[in-house]
Amino acid sequence: MTISWEPFQFFGGNTLDPLTNVLLELFLVFVAAQVGAEIAQRLKLPAVVGEITAGCLLGASVLGWIHINEPLEVLAEIGAVFLLFSVGLETRVDELKKVGRVATLVGISGVVLPFVLGTAWALYIGDDIPRSMFVGAAFVATSAGITARVLQDLGMLNRTESRVILGAAVIDDILAMLLLGLVTSLQAGSGVDLSNLFLVFIQAIGFIVVIALVGTRIMRRSSLLLERPINPLSPLTICLALCLGLAVAASYLGLAAIIGAFLAGMIAAETEQRETLIAQLRPIMAFLVPFFFVVTGAKINLAALGSVDVLLMLLVVTLLAIAGKFIGCSLAALSLGRKSAVIVGVGMVPRGEVGIIVAGLGLQAGIFSDTIYAIIIAMSLITSVITPPALGALFADTKSASSQVSAQEDGNK
Amino acid sequence: MTISWEPFQFFGGNTLDPLTNVLLELFLVFVAAQVGAEIAQRLKLPAVVGEITAGCLLGASVLGWIHINEPLEVLAEIGAVFLLFSVGLETRVDELKKVGRVATLVGISGVVLPFVLGTAWALYIGDDIPRSMFVGAAFVATSAGITARVLQDLGMLNRTESRVILGAAVIDDILAMLLLGLVTSLQAGSGVDLSNLFLVFIQAIGFIVVIALVGTRIMRRSSLLLERPINPLSPLTICLALCLGLAVAASYLGLAAIIGAFLAGMIAAETEQRETLIAQLRPIMAFLVPFFFVVTGAKINLAALGSVDVLLMLLVVTLLAIAGKFIGCSLAALSLGRKSAVIVGVGMVPRGEVGIIVAGLGLQAGIFSDTIYAIIIAMSLITSVITPPALGALFADTKSASSQVSAQEDGNK
Repeated sequence: MTISWEPFQFFGGNTLDPLTNVLLELFLVFVAAQVGAEIAQRLKLPAVVGEITAGCLLGASVLGWIHINEPLEVLAEIGAVFLLFSVGLETRVDELKKVGRVATLVGISGVVLPFVLGTAWALYIGDDIPRSMFVGAAFVATSAGITARVLQDLGMLNRTESRVILGAAVIDDILAMLLLGLVTSLQAGSGVDLSNLFLVFIQAIGFIVVIALVGTRIMRRSSLLLERPINPLSPLTICLALCLGLAVAASYLGLAAIIGAFLAGMIAAETEQRETLIAQLRPIMAFLVPFFFVVTGAKINLAALGSVDVLLMLLVVTLLAIAGKFIGCSLAALSLGRKSAVIVGVGMVPRGEVGIIVAGLGLQAGIFSDTIYAIIIAMSLITSVITPPALGALFADTKSASSQVSAQEDGNK
Repeated sequence: MTISWEPFQFFGGNTLDPLTNVLLELFLVFVAAQVGAEIAQRLKLPAVVGEITAGCLLGASVLGWIHINEPLEVLAEIGAVFLLFSVGLETRVDELKKVGRVATLVGISGVVLPFVLGTAWALYIGDDIPRSMFVGAAFVATSAGITARVLQDLGMLNRTESRVILGAAVIDDILAMLLLGLVTSLQAGSGVDLSNLFLVFIQAIGFIVVIALVGTRIMRRSSLLLERPINPLSPLTICLALCLGLAVAASYLGLAAIIGAFLAGMIAAETEQRETLIAQLRPIMAFLVPFFFVVTGAKINLAALGSVDVLLMLLVVTLLAIAGKFIGCSLAALSLGRKSAVIVGVGMVPRGEVGIIVAGLGLQAGIFSDTIYAIIIAMSLITSVITPPALGALFADTKSASSQVSAQEDGNK
């Protein structure tokens, strides 16, 4: 593909060279994301809500200012890959062990019930089993990012409930990745014989387990690779290369690229340079991740939501998504006491990046219709919007309630 | 353009979905850049030499592992834009005033002579005047980055000669941008009447002067925009938006996008957050700039260099480029004494990013043939490779020579 360059189509808006057009789109997307995020945050909503809304406004169904083309798709994909890399970077095997039994229970139970409800709903509206399980997978992942941000804003990061929520959200992410591997393999199997399907599935799960276990161990023992003297940015560039490499490897194995990126993040989290990496990744993400969310929003076909039937569907899906997480997680956290269990249940409700990414994969693969895609994105946004105020109210309500950890460590942070 | 997604073409290398193929190319480009840079730096060569060589190896004329497609072009363009943004960020109007008369003389004289020689050579081989001036423009810009790195490695940043070199390199960059604006306008004028050409030229120069003068003043007086409390990355994202916005604006005016990015950097350099911005930009550049250099290398058609005639041409061009800079700059620096003048002359020799970008623009615009493009890139590389050892030898030679500034401040750095 060659790109002609005519730099002299002076003020001739329609006849600009392709690169200028793409630059203009990048500029629009980036600015819209910043403005959307700023407005959302001033309204005390998660930034991602503003970015997706901005994308929806710029997209074909409202203003039509941007058209999803290959460069934008690729930037959005890189954004998603780095986003999941950073989620992986926040995931430490050791810390998972510390949060212990309750968080594990909450995480697992908070995956099973929404998955079952989501799958059941999709079966009910008439999808086949593999497609329905793909829908179920989009119901699963709690947004660790959104919840952590809210808990941080409330100054509640040291409470037992917060630790359980964050630990469970991480377990949640790992299970969501396994589940995504499972449903993509199942989806691959439609029309293929069962033994082949089994092989694909085993290879997918094997990839995840081997990389996660062996990779983290290798990294923990030898940080040699990362101690080169010449280039001060070497640890970062090596880890970015690892991230891209495992993303490609995951794609080759029929898994989503983001699964590889997530595993790369988990591996990188075991190095001594983890804090540096997190800090250096932040500016990169500040530039690239908005492309992912704006493109996500731009793909929403608002017309697909424009009927009473579909809005009712959205209502049902949102209620199922909330009920699944809330019931699953609060039941599993009952040992903390009823009030704490309620807080944990509410804290696990927001769906975020991972669910949105799964929805995007479903749309690209032709598994989701415009309607299902729009419903799942809208559901993710709604759960993200209602959780922060609910959590705030609950914490205000129980400020004097029992919380052993917070009593010990309240002054630390 | 829609992208089909078939995640299940398991191990079927040829039938992978487009996004996976692009991811694979990104991975190859990124890793090749890192390996190339690492090898170059271990050989005491500038990293950019390794990155361009890696690109040349990956490209069509050797391995053929990567094909320049639109996403790669866009990533390379973003890399070039941020590269020039960071060059602008290092350019402070105040510091330019400090370096004073000698640096200004060196900068101007170091632009005029190479430009004249380059243009004359192109006229001699048979190009018309506008094309020849485009060739001349590619002869002009000293790589402040490469020289600064060498001086830093030698621990010579405090010497008078070093200050003159760096100051002159900055003036050099500004003049190169003005010149690029001039030659693109002239190029635009081929076949257009003179009054229109004059209008385009005035608008281009007007844009540069207005943005540079007014923009920096506005920024210096009110950093209000950048003092928002909500998002700690706001200064960065606002400046990135400014960078993309001015890049697009420059494109619309018929200028190279990088001119707008450079101006955005100069404006951002006047804010209080300059140091933070430089630090935050580094990881972003570590990810994106390699794409620019690898794509630059991949576009080299080695076959175009494969004849004795062309190699002789390359020799002549390189000698002209070296002679133009060396004579122009050392003459202008004679007031520092003969030895210092020689050091300044040698230090200004390496051509780098800006010259390479101009060559890329020339290729895209169809102004440069494959041969001219390959010759200019090769010339830039050769001047960058020979300067560091030459500078090292010269400084070793004159270690006891007179240098007022170094005597005062030797202990500081």
